[in-house]
Order: sequence, then C-alpha cells, then structure tokens
Amino acid sequence: MTTFRIEHDFLGERELPDTAYYGIQTLRALENFSITGIPINTERLFVQALAYVKKGAALANCELGVLPAPIGEAIVAACDRVAAGEFDNQFLTDMIQGGAGTSVNMNANEVIANVALEIMGHPKGAYQYCHPNNHVNCSQSTNDAYPTAFRIALNNKLVGYRETLGALADAFAQKGVEFQDVLKMGRTQLQDAVPMSMGDEFHAFATNLREELLRIDDSRRLIDEINMGATAIGTRVNAPAGYPELVTEYLRRITGLNLILAGDLIEATYDTGAYVQLSGVLKRTAVKLSKICNDLRLLSSGPRCGINEINLPPLQPGSSIMPGKVNPVVPEVVNQTAFYVIGADLTVTMAAEAGQLQLNVMEPVISFALFTSISYMTNACRTLRDKCVVGITANKAHAESLVRNSIGIVTQLNPVIGYEASAEIAKEALLTGKSVHDIAVTERGLLTQEKWDEIFTFENLIRPVFMR
Amino acid sequence: MTTFRIEHDFLGERELPDTAYYGIQTLRALENFSITGIPINTERLFVQALAYVKKGAALANCELGVLPAPIGEAIVAACDRVAAGEFDNQFLTDMIQGGAGTSVNMNANEVIANVALEIMGHPKGAYQYCHPNNHVNCSQSTNDAYPTAFRIALNNKLVGYRETLGALADAFAQKGVEFQDVLKMGRTQLQDAVPMSMGDEFHAFATNLREELLRIDDSRRLIDEINMGATAIGTRVNAPAGYPELVTEYLRRITGLNLILAGDLIEATYDTGAYVQLSGVLKRTAVKLSKICNDLRLLSSGPRCGINEINLPPLQPGSSIMPGKVNPVVPEVVNQTAFYVIGADLTVTMAAEAGQLQLNVMEPVISFALFTSISYMTNACRTLRDKCVVGITANKAHAESLVRNSIGIVTQLNPVIGYEASAEIAKEALLTGKSVHDIAVTERGLLTQEKWDEIFTFENLIRPVFMR
Amino acid sequence: MTTFRIEHDFLGERELPDTAYYGIQTLRALENFSITGIPINTERLFVQALAYVKKGAALANCELGVLPAPIGEAIVAACDRVAAGEFDNQFLTDMIQGGAGTSVNMNANEVIANVALEIMGHPKGAYQYCHPNNHVNCSQSTNDAYPTAFRIALNNKLVGYRETLGALADAFAQKGVEFQDVLKMGRTQLQDAVPMSMGDEFHAFATNLREELLRIDDSRRLIDEINMGATAIGTRVNAPAGYPELVTEYLRRITGLNLILAGDLIEATYDTGAYVQLSGVLKRTAVKLSKICNDLRLLSSGPRCGINEINLPPLQPGSSIMPGKVNPVVPEVVNQTAFYVIGADLTVTMAAEAGQLQLNVMEPVISFALFTSISYMTNACRTLRDKCVVGITANKAHAESLVRNSIGIVTQLNPVIGYEASAEIAKEALLTGKSVHDIAVTERGLLTQEKWDEIFTFENLIRPVFMR
Amino acid sequence: MTTFRIEHDFLGERELPDTAYYGIQTLRALENFSITGIPINTERLFVQALAYVKKGAALANCELGVLPAPIGEAIVAACDRVAAGEFDNQFLTDMIQGGAGTSVNMNANEVIANVALEIMGHPKGAYQYCHPNNHVNCSQSTNDAYPTAFRIALNNKLVGYRETLGALADAFAQKGVEFQDVLKMGRTQLQDAVPMSMGDEFHAFATNLREELLRIDDSRRLIDEINMGATAIGTRVNAPAGYPELVTEYLRRITGLNLILAGDLIEATYDTGAYVQLSGVLKRTAVKLSKICNDLRLLSSGPRCGINEINLPPLQPGSSIMPGKVNPVVPEVVNQTAFYVIGADLTVTMAAEAGQLQLNVMEPVISFALFTSISYMTNACRTLRDKCVVGITANKAHAESLVRNSIGIVTQLNPVIGYEASAEIAKEALLTGKSVHDIAVTERGLLTQEKWDEIFTFENLIRPVFMR
Repeated sequence: MTTFRIEHDFLGERELPDTAYYGIQTLRALENFSITGIPINTERLFVQALAYVKKGAALANCELGVLPAPIGEAIVAACDRVAAGEFDNQFLTDMIQGGAGTSVNMNANEVIANVALEIMGHPKGAYQYCHPNNHVNCSQSTNDAYPTAFRIALNNKLVGYRETLGALADAFAQKGVEFQDVLKMGRTQLQDAVPMSMGDEFHAFATNLREELLRIDDSRRLIDEINMGATAIGTRVNAPAGYPELVTEYLRRITGLNLILAGDLIEATYDTGAYVQLSGVLKRTAVKLSKICNDLRLLSSGPRCGINEINLPPLQPGSSIMPGKVNPVVPEVVNQTAFYVIGADLTVTMAAEAGQLQLNVMEPVISFALFTSISYMTNACRTLRDKCVVGITANKAHAESLVRNSIGIVTQLNPVIGYEASAEIAKEALLTGKSVHDIAVTERGLLTQEKWDEIFTFENLIRPVFMR
Repeated sequence: MTTFRIEHDFLGERELPDTAYYGIQTLRALENFSITGIPINTERLFVQALAYVKKGAALANCELGVLPAPIGEAIVAACDRVAAGEFDNQFLTDMIQGGAGTSVNMNANEVIANVALEIMGHPKGAYQYCHPNNHVNCSQSTNDAYPTAFRIALNNKLVGYRETLGALADAFAQKGVEFQDVLKMGRTQLQDAVPMSMGDEFHAFATNLREELLRIDDSRRLIDEINMGATAIGTRVNAPAGYPELVTEYLRRITGLNLILAGDLIEATYDTGAYVQLSGVLKRTAVKLSKICNDLRLLSSGPRCGINEINLPPLQPGSSIMPGKVNPVVPEVVNQTAFYVIGADLTVTMAAEAGQLQLNVMEPVISFALFTSISYMTNACRTLRDKCVVGITANKAHAESLVRNSIGIVTQLNPVIGYEASAEIAKEALLTGKSVHDIAVTERGLLTQEKWDEIFTFENLIRPVFMR
Repeated sequence: MTTFRIEHDFLGERELPDTAYYGIQTLRALENFSITGIPINTERLFVQALAYVKKGAALANCELGVLPAPIGEAIVAACDRVAAGEFDNQFLTDMIQGGAGTSVNMNANEVIANVALEIMGHPKGAYQYCHPNNHVNCSQSTNDAYPTAFRIALNNKLVGYRETLGALADAFAQKGVEFQDVLKMGRTQLQDAVPMSMGDEFHAFATNLREELLRIDDSRRLIDEINMGATAIGTRVNAPAGYPELVTEYLRRITGLNLILAGDLIEATYDTGAYVQLSGVLKRTAVKLSKICNDLRLLSSGPRCGINEINLPPLQPGSSIMPGKVNPVVPEVVNQTAFYVIGADLTVTMAAEAGQLQLNVMEPVISFALFTSISYMTNACRTLRDKCVVGITANKAHAESLVRNSIGIVTQLNPVIGYEASAEIAKEALLTGKSVHDIAVTERGLLTQEKWDEIFTFENLIRPVFMR
Repeated sequence: MTTFRIEHDFLGERELPDTAYYGIQTLRALENFSITGIPINTERLFVQALAYVKKGAALANCELGVLPAPIGEAIVAACDRVAAGEFDNQFLTDMIQGGAGTSVNMNANEVIANVALEIMGHPKGAYQYCHPNNHVNCSQSTNDAYPTAFRIALNNKLVGYRETLGALADAFAQKGVEFQDVLKMGRTQLQDAVPMSMGDEFHAFATNLREELLRIDDSRRLIDEINMGATAIGTRVNAPAGYPELVTEYLRRITGLNLILAGDLIEATYDTGAYVQLSGVLKRTAVKLSKICNDLRLLSSGPRCGINEINLPPLQPGSSIMPGKVNPVVPEVVNQTAFYVIGADLTVTMAAEAGQLQLNVMEPVISFALFTSISYMTNACRTLRDKCVVGITANKAHAESLVRNSIGIVTQLNPVIGYEASAEIAKEALLTGKSVHDIAVTERGLLTQEKWDEIFTFENLIRPVFMR
C-alpha cells in the first residue's frame, strides 16, 4: 500500500507518495505541464549536468561558509548518485514547460534534498535538515543554475555528435580515395558540364562536412560561458562575495570542461545568443547533409532511366507493389532529419526573440529543440555512414562511357580552337546526335587526330592539364 | 526460450522471433531507421487508419474477384482487431523513415497477414495462405495506401483538436461576459490609447480563435481527398477496373468520413498541398495563441511595477530564490508550444518542396510534424483553458483608476474641441503630470464641467457614443 | 527658386517646399524611416486604395452631417485625382516604417487635403479650410483606414496574380494534351517505377496549380473583411452612429469589391490572421512551383548524361566557359522566387505574432512582404509560362526507349506471375544487365510470348488496363 | 536617332543600341529575367568587386602568357573605370536570375570588353580585338568569378555594417554610464523580480551587441575564402598552371582583403556554407535587436498606464486620431527590419539546400538576400542609434518609487529570515496591498528597523552586497 507524506509551499499543501524523491513543486509541475509527454530524463546528460551544478554550488557554499558542512557533504554525495543515473526516473517534468526552467531546477533541488536527507538518516520531506531552496539551491536561482546545467549538457552532447559527424566525413574521404580513378561527368545546373574524378566528388563531401567540425568547436566556445552567481537577474543578490568565481572553478573541475564566467552577468542571464548560434550551426550542417543526400540520390538514380553512376547498398525492398525496386532510403531519412532540424532552428529563433527584459523565459523549448536536433543529427550521421556511405560502389564503366559520349568534353577544346568554334560544334552535336570527335576532327578538321588524342587521354579528362 | 521463424524477401533471409506479428520488412526497417526513437504507434489513430485502409481494400478486392473470399474475410477480421488497438505494440517503425512510408505500409501488411493467418489456423509466416504483398496489399501501393491512412488519421485527430480549441474560445467568451463592466485602458503600440471594456477585450480573443475553427473545417475538406487505386504513380496499374471508386466507397462507410476520390490520380499521388495548407492553419492558430498569451502576460504583469489589470490563477511557486513570486507559467508554455508548431510548419514546407516527379518521398516527416503539432496544440489549448483562462480575475478598481488618471481620455474631446486643442492638452499633461480635466476645464475653460460630466460618464468611457 | 511654407504639429514647426503636396508629418516620416529605400508608391494599387478609403469616408461623413458638404466634395474630387495616379510622386514614405502605418495614412491625409485646398482655391497648408486630421481623416484612425486600404489593394492585386497563375496552369494543360502519346518512365524516389504518359505528367502540373486558384479565392474572402469605423481600437470612439455600415457600403460601390464589415471590430483592429492565411497560400503555391521547376530541370537534365526526356527552349548561352551549354534558367529563377516568397512568409508570421493588445504595429512589414511576394510570384508565373512552358518539346523516341529498356516494366507482371517471381526477375536483370523479356519469357518461360505481347502493347504501357 | 550594332552568340543575332556597353548576353538576360525589377547596380560594391575580379584575372593571365599584354592592359584600364563607378548604369540584370550568375558575369565581361575596345580605339562589338569570353573571362568561369566577386563585395559591405553596429553598442554603453544611479525594478517573466541599476540594464544591451561584432569577424574569415581558378567545377580545366594562386595574390593586393584560395576547389565551387553562416549571424543580431527594441517599448510603455521608466525621443505625432500620442516608432521599425532579415535567412537556407552536384545555381537569390539584409540592418542600426538611443531619458523618481513600493524587495530578506518566511510576507503583501516593510518589521517583527535600514539602503538595493 502506498503511503504518503505531506509537503507544503506558499500555495498550500499536497500529498506525495513516499516513494517519490521529488517534492511538491515537481508534483505541481507534472500537473501543470503536459504538452509533449517527453520527460526531461530523456536527456540523460541534462540530469547529470543538473547534479554537477548542484554539487559545484554546494562545494562553493561550504567553502564560503554559507552552507553547513554536514549538509553540504550530504548534498555532494546525493549529487554524485544523481549524476551517475541512479535517480533518472525522478526527473519527470515535461520538456516544454513554463516558468523558465524553474520546475526543472526545483525537480533537481527536491530530488537531491531527499536523497541527501536519506543519506543523513532523515525521512524524505524533513526539509528542516536539508531544504530544496535554502540548502540545495543556496546562492542560486533557476536563472543561473538552469542555463548552466543546460550548457554543460550541450557541451557533453556535442562531443558525441562531433565524433559521429567526423566519422561520416572520414567515410566519404575513404570513398574519395577508392573512386579516385573513376572518370565521370561533372554537372552544373543538372546539365552536363566537364569531366571529373568521382574520387574528387566524394572527397569534396568530406571537405564539406569537416568544415562543420570547426563550426561545432566555435559553438562550444560560446556555450562554455556560464553565469553561475548571477542569481535572479545578474545582480548577484543573495550570493556571497567570491562565489561566482569559486563555483565556476569547481564546475570546471567537476565537468572537465573549459567553463568561463560571463563578464556581464546581467546580460548573460537573459542572453540566448549562444543557442541561436549553435542552432545555426546545426542548421548549416543539416543543409549540407541534405544537399549531399540529394546528390547521392541523383547519382544513384535509375537504374536504367537515370544517372546510375553509383550504387547505394540495398537495405530493404523498396516497394510494396514494384518488385525488385530498391530505394535510397537512408539518404531519404537523412533529408527528412535535416528538414526537422531546420524547423527546430526556427523554433529556437522565435524563442530567442521572445526574451523580455532580464530573462528569456522560453529557454525550455530551446533546450528541447537543441537536445532533439543534436540527437537526431547524431543518429542521422551514424545511419548515413554505417548503412550507406561505406557500402557505396561505383559503376565505373557506365560513368566513363557517359563522359566519352558527351558534348561536355568540348570545353577542353576552348584554348585550342576558341569558345565560338567550340560552341558551334556543341550546337551541331546536340541537334544531330553526332559525337564531338566526329564533328571537330573528321568533319571540320579543326584539330588533328594527334592533338585530339593528346587532349582526351583518360588522365587529361579526369585531371585536366592546361594545354593550347 | 524464444523460438524463431525464417522469412525471406528478395534481399535474403532473416530470423524473426515467433512472437512477432510483423515480418522481415519491418525487421529491416527497425534496423535501418533509428532517428527519433518514437515509434509510429505513438499515434494510435494512425495504426487504426492503416487497418481501416487494409479492410476497405480487402472488401473491394473480394467484391471485384481479385481476392479469394476466405482470405479476404480473414484479413477483414484481422483489420478489425488491429483497428481496435490489440496489436499496437507491433507497429514499431520510427516516425521518421526513408522509403516514403513503405516500411509503415509493410508493417501493417505483415501484422495483418500474420493475424489473418492465425485466424485461418495457420502459423505466422505461412504467407502462401495470406501474403503481405499479394493479399493484404492487393491492388495497393504504399503510394496510395499510406497517404490515405495518413489522411484518415489526420481527419480524426482534427476532431479532438477542434473541440478543444472551441472550448478554449468559449472560455474566453465567458470571461468576455464576466468582464463586460470592467473599464480599462486600451493600448496601441504599448502606449495608452482610449478606454474600453475588458469584456470586449476577452470577447475578441474568443472571436479570434473561433475563426480558426472555420479554417480547420477548410483543411478537412482538402484532407478528405484520397488517392486509393492510384497504386504506384497514379496510373492505376495492377488495380482492377472500378476498384478506386469502390474502395473509396468502402472507406467512407468504415470511417464515417466524407472521403472523396481525387480527380487526377497522378497529381494526387505526389501532391502534398493539403498538408501544407493544414500546417499553415496550425501555424496561424499558433501565431494567434502566442499573441493572446503575450497579452495575458502583459495584462498580468507586475503586480506592483507592471500593468496588473488581471490576475492569472497561481499554479506553482515561480522562483527558487524570489519568495512569493508567481509567474504566468501557462501562457509561457503555450508560447513555447506555438514556437514549436511554427518550426514544424517549416519542416512541412521543406518536405513538401522536396517532392520529385511522381512522388513525395518525404511524407513520413510531414506526418511526424503534423501529428506532433496537432497533439501539442491540443494539449496547449486544454492547458490554457483549464489551468488559466477559466480562473482569470480582473482588478476592476485598479484598471478603472488607470483610465481616470490617463491622458488617453483626451481623444474623446476631439469632436468637441478639435484635434489640435486636444493635442495641446495632452502635451501639457505629459510634461506637468496634471490631469486632462484640470487643464481642459479648470485652467483653459475649453468646455464646461457639465459637458465634461456628460462626456466622461462610466458608460460613455466604456462604450463611447458619438457626441459633439 | 524654391519657396517654402511653414507647417506645424504638436512637436513643433517645419518648412516644406511649396511644391510638396504632402505635409509636416510626411516630412518627419521621410526623415525617420529610411530602411529599404523603396517608397510606398512602388505599389500603385496601394496609393489608389488609400484614395478610395478617403473618398468613401468623406461621402459617409457628409451624409451623416459630420463633414461640411463643400469640404467633402473637394476631398472627393481630390481622391479621384489621387486614385487616378496624378500624385503618386507624393507618396514617398518607406515601405518599412514604425507607427503602424500612421505615416502612410497621414501621407494620404496631407496630400488629399492639399489637393482639396487647391480645388477650393486655397493655398497648400491652409488647413483651416480642409484639415488632414479633422476633415480628411474624419471618423477614421490609422488603425482602420490603413488596413482597409491595404486589403483593397491586396484584393485588386490578387486579380492579376490569379489570372497569370491560371494562364500558366493552362499552358501546362496544353502540353498535357500535346504529350498525351509520349510514353515515358514514371519515377518515384528518383528510381524507375512504372511507365506513364508524359501528357498525364504535364496535365498533373496543371491540376496541381489550378487548385491554387481556389485557395486564392478562399484568401480573398478573408481579405474582404474590413474594419472601417473601428477608429482607434474598435470601440468606434469619435465615429458617428451608422458610420461603419455606411462607409463600408460606399467602399463596396467605389471599389466594386465584396467588402464586408467585420462583426467584432475590437478583434478586427488587431487581427492579422487574413494576412497569415494569404501568405500561407502564396507559400503553398511557391512550394508547388518550386517542385514543378525541380521536375522540369530533372526531366531536361543531360542532354547526354541525364534524363533528357524533354527540351526547354534555349534562352541564352549557359556558360561563360562551357560552349554550347544551355541551362534551365527560367525554372531556376522561379525556384529562387519561391525561396524568396517562403522567406517572406516567415517575415509575415513573425510580424503577426508580434501584435500586442489592441493593435498589430507590424503591419507595414506585412504589407511590404505581401506586395512584394505577389509581384514576384506574378512575374515568375508569367516568365515560366512565356519563356519556358509553351516552348517545351518532348524527346519521344528517347523517352520510349528508356521504358522499353527498363526493369520497371516488371511490375505489370505481378498479377500474372506474382510479386515474388517478378522480384526475382528484377533482381537478375539488375545484376546481369539482361532485359526483363529475356529473363521472363525466354529463359524462365514464366509466360508465353503471346501473353507478353498482350501485356506490353504501347497502349497498355502508357495507360495500363488490369489483366491477369 | 539611336543607331544599332549587331552582336551574335550561338543562339543567333541581336541588335544592340550603340550606346550600350553591355552586349547580346546581357540583352537576353534583361529579357529573360524580370522578377524583382531591382538591378544589380543597386549594390554598388558588387559592381566594383566584379571589376576587381576581372582586373586580377587579366593581370594573372598576362603574367602567365595566356593573354596578350595590350589586351590585358586595356582590360585592366577598363576595370579601373568600372570599379570607380563610371559604368554602373550598364549593370542592369535583375537581382534574382537563373543561370547561377552567368548573366551577371557576362554583363561584366561585355561591359569591360567594350570599354577596353574603346580604350584601344575600336568600336563596341569588335570582339575580335577583345572578346568578353576569350579575353575578359580568360581562365575563368562564372562559377569562380561570380562567387569571388560576391565575397569581395560582402566583405566590404560588412565593414560599414560592423562600424554602424559598433556605434549603436557604444550609444547603449554611454547610456549605461548615464543611468548608473537610476534604481529600478528588474523583471523576469514580466513579473517584478529584484531591484537593479538602469545603467546595468543599458550596459547589458551594449554587451549583447558587442558580441555580434566578433561574430561578424568570424563570418568574414569564412567569406575570405575564394575559388578563383576552379573554373567550371573546380577541376581547373582551361586555367594555366599556377593561375589560381597567382590571381588570388593579385586580388589580395587589389582589394586589400585577406583573401585565401580554397584548399578543395571542387567543394568550394558548390559550397554555400559561408553564406549560410553569415546569414545566421545576421539573423542572430536581428533576434537580439528585436529583443532590445521590445524592451525599449516595454520600458517606455504608458505613459500613465504602463511601465514608463524611460522616455524615447518623440519623433512624430503618433496617431491620426489620438491627440498627443507619441509612439516608439523607431524600435518598431527595427523590429520589422529584424523580421525581414529572419525571413531572408530562410531564403538563404532554402537556396543553400537546393545546390546540386557540382554547383549551387541559387546563388543569385542568396546574394540578393544577403545584400538586402546587410543594407537594411545597417540602416536600422543607424536609425536606432541616431533617432532613439542617444536621446533616451530616464524617469528616475518614478522608477525608484516603483521599487520602494514593490514586493520584489522581499528577496533580499531571504538570507536573514529564510525563503519561507519571506514567501509568507510576499503572500500577505499581495493579498492586502500592504508594504513589505510594514509586514516584516512592524507587524511581524521579523527583523529590527536597524537591520531593515542596513539592508535597504539605496546602495544595497541598486548593487546588492551579501549580508545575513
């Protein structure tokens, strides 16, 4: 049989099941917010980061003499257990919530207080011995503790994402090497342009994505900035002298991150610029991934009525009606992930714009959007690498025959016979279906067969050298 | 001990746990797509709609003689059980997936085939007796079955949403009546404008939202259009003559919806215009809700250093550091939901734009975005109504004293003393802090006390009548 | 030599060149707002609509006895000349401006007052005889006059846009007829699917766009609703009894539009829902146009290394370096226009969300976005029709040979030999390069040559009939 | 009487007025593209940058012996005149155009060729002496020349923008100093929070915007990367050995910018990541500006029925009906500009995503969006500084009285009497209207008058020091 304890806040009293480590304010939040049905413990790193923040604050508070050592020690011990994941099932408030994260912060304060109480040998709810607000939240406000935990979690989450994205880029680079000697038609505006190496095409995908790793690093530098000690609005009210610097130092040690105390705490308490920038970086990568996946789908189109220069690994029957059809399902799912992330960036943008005066109350939806986007992007990159890129093969003979049969090779005649003569050849080839060679060499005699052979070697087609 | 059966498709063989009603293609999809971690059974109405579609197709196929009656009957019985929710735990593919919904469609085909097999007394996987493709998917393609199920689910989901939104509008209308005789300052550009009734202000919120009900109805008319019988690309290949019309008629009966067969099946098979339109309507409502919540937060700002004309019901302590602070947490969570929905609309937009040739392969992310947006909006409307609007109270005396003390009442003097004389009074009042009455009547004698009293009755302030 | 007159408002005095029909408030606006450099007279229909509104108001005011007949008549005469375009060069305030359109409204009030003064034989600026606020703006506020003029202008602008879009759809329909007997491969997910008629493909473009005409009509119904008589915030303060209905009737007559007085003037004065809806419709059409242009570019890709089923009319040399290259420049410019319009929709969305209390002060940027989007869309549709669609030709032989050589035709064997046997054939064809016919008939003997011939007639490929 | 010359390209012949320095390809582009009506010469820096690119190429080509010195010299001289603005009226193609910028590039090639011809004493059109493609465009393609010119123009445009934004931040910092001793209520979630200095509030705006200067610098580093020598698709086809490095060096000298040759020319030729990043930075600044302007409008709301802590300089009468009303028109126009820029960022995003294979053909709309956004933002920052921020004044006495009268000061009692006792006081104050002092000191005797006086000094309210 469930037993209950009574807790109160300034709005009244409520019963809590004795098994609950969270308290009355979390209970109210659970009743007040049910939008997504996705609890904050979905983001493990966030729960961990909340525990880190509370631990750092407790250590600083003890050192500065504003928190009695026995209480502080119990809080620290409780934080370690929460950080390790022992109480994830107590972090239940909805990802989208009002109150600027107060419910998340109080959820952490209450759980940690009750774990600390148990450690000290008191029953849950005996807050006179360890109080969620007076002790666990000592020298803090939601407005500094919440964004700091958010930033620590983001920082750690970006580590895994960066690694996965880097591995994807490496897989493309590997294909770049593998396809180095596959000659293919380069295309601009979907029209045949000039020949190139398929290896260079795949290597360029790697280059394109590797730049994103640097952008992630830029973002992390902005995310490193925290505002601990700002308390309610950045005036440091109720925080002891020296606390902001000290707690930041403790958090650096606890997290191993290069955290920095913001120079202007008033500004740092409402500013969401770092999230907008990070979201913009995620969006940029999404845009690039989408473009790359569009390319993979184009290049593998067909097989008989499309470009068909490459084969994606077949993963599943592609149709419930068309036998033998295999679709580029992985690039497709990555495209869709990209559209999600681009949409989420707009959510972040609007939430950031909605900040007012000394606070941006919309931070929870920003955290929801960013956590989700990073997770989805990580999954998409892993899927794209493992299920698609590493297994791509080239249709070398077909790709080369397209080049040899193309009109696009006429560009290489420009320096020899001039743009206008080349254009005449192209025009005739298009109208008649004849080959460039036949028109240029045989019919018009604009260059000798020897010159032609010199220009149109495999080597000069795939890696052109200037000649006149 | 788990036992297994072997299934095969044209890519090879795979083991499936004997408990699984889904088959090899679902298994592959589970391995291929893990982006969101949110399975399609999160949307109960979608699973139900898939079963409806399969049932309708089976009935039509039997009637047209392309499906043997015993198999058809077993499929119909299986569909009824799936529609009722008995096998929701078998619908596990990820909300975002490649393949244009083929995995969702095959998930349904496989589960229904195996349930039908059990009904017929065969073991799971004995597809020679009832085959996922040949029988359950008979006369169908993913490209007609999937969007049809999606549209049926949307239609049903909109019913609940519309009702919740209507109830919210009604709650505002109710407050409109309750606050009819609360005099308050109207504001334009956040500057004091002219007086008004708070009842009219709240009634306008009701008007504003009730228009959305009509827009939802418009959307449903577009969503009613389905493309059953189009099969792969709209040419009706492999569907018997008369099938498109017949299956549509069956689906009308099964669902009770006013479904209509599209006139141009080629177009209907790739077009996502109805989703874009619906998403736009959701966005429009989100924009309005956000504006209304911004207003509620403005009007309840303070209590001492803001406008403070209304009180929102206190739901939870608002701060971990500031005692007694109560925040407008429900409007805040609605604002954030609105930002989510506006972002999701962009996702839909990009996915719609990415359609190519005879299909839009991005439909799964569209379904994810729309299902999520409708759910969140429904939750937000319910929360706003129940936790906030119904409990709003007016600070009548304070609101009226703001009006009486304002400069904005000078506008009512225009028809009597002219715009320029009124402007002079306003200017002096602003500079000196004097009241409009003192300047106009006492100091400048621009009108008599009697005329003043006639103009500035409570009745004429709150519901002005033209006078000169 | 320029001579000057002095005007004043409650902020002070300013000199105006005697040639200026606008007055001091316009002058201040010109100094205050220089963001885009694009004056409001860029939208001729807007200037016209402002004159219509002022004329309607003057007529109603005269009839209700709040405006002396001689002044009213002069205003009406002045409005006619402004509506005809005679004073467009006096409407100079920047498209993006603060003040919720007050500067646009005062620009109109001042120009009309001075034209009326000249008509009455008074010098410019002799406002005692005809005052911009007291007479021209009589019974009005910016907050009703401005949105009403905006809606009239939108309404008229949509007429031309709708016609151009309809003509584009007709051009596609015409091609639908022309290409009826061109057999081509249908493609889903860029993979070969099943055969179809190119005529059906083009006809579907027409269907797709014709639906937009209905959506434009829906939008116009919302735009028809005006709030004349609401004055400042919808309380009708300073408007005589009966005025709202009367001025609406006059405006119906003047404009020939089906204008309707809003039922809730408080709501109508701040609501921007009709703009959001219209912008959403423009976005939807942009999404569709972009998809269609993507298709045209895909279908004309190559010529030798792409799909090459159609030819777009060559308009200009496509490259400064690649001779003979011709690019799909018109679809490309339409794609870009679509991206602009989709961006502008976001601008409208954010501006709409930013409304506060009794007004949405962001309406000028909404008008800028909508006027621009409609203009650009109209231009894009005209260009696409005239410069591209009407000149498209089909590569009939090539398109048919792709089909005959494809694996996709195997789907038509499903009802005869079953999905699994078909899938085996497809798999072997893909691996070996053999034709479906050779495997199915010659090697495996799964059907007779006679049956094959019956199934794979041109007629049955292009317009399949169900057979077993 | 206009005389004409005949020019031809591979599509045929056309007449050009002899006055035209542009040639046949520009003429075709003028006919083909009329979407915005805004010619590229609207962006002076772009025309200048095109001339720089052509000059740099000519110098490198001469040095490498692929361009005869006399022709090269004439081209260089022509470029200098074009760069100086002498031929701006010849750069007329529409800002949004198909063809990936080919028409812009050919416009430049043709104008420069004809100016060079005149310099050499030949008539316009005598291209055998100096040819737009063979000589002016020598060793170039649109696909390297166009983006390089675009990046140079962006770089130069960002200089002015950065300076204007910096001056705006400085103006806020100046107000930060001026308002240092204005005590005011800090607000979170629009609810009274804790006291602060108005100087700190304004200083935070400066901090907030100064961070943007660093982000602009980051963007410029990405924009510095160019791809000259890539020619058509990055394979360097038709460019002599050493050319890419040499032309980059020449361009560094000509422009004075820190231009860098991209390491992967294949990637650099299609990548639009730098534009997405820059657009994201512009968006971020727009979000911040919008938030700041929202704050300015909130803080100046009233004057009698709002917050009214500050006064914005009155710029123009705010209403055509409400006398004496003055509106925050400058923050309003900045908000709207921000919404425009956020919309334009979406345009850039979609255009970037639409790149395909070896090129992104949507670059013209990206250039339109970025040029416009930077211009508008520059104008908005200048307007905000000059017309608003520098003239803001504080209502010091009113702001302080709000604080003294507030409940929010109770937070400062936390460390002395605990969170719960403080909350009780707050609750009673809210219900009864009593002051915190009366309840805490007089009624409940929770602290002495001496302690109260110690805590609630002006100094400790405005810059709180921790005390227990």
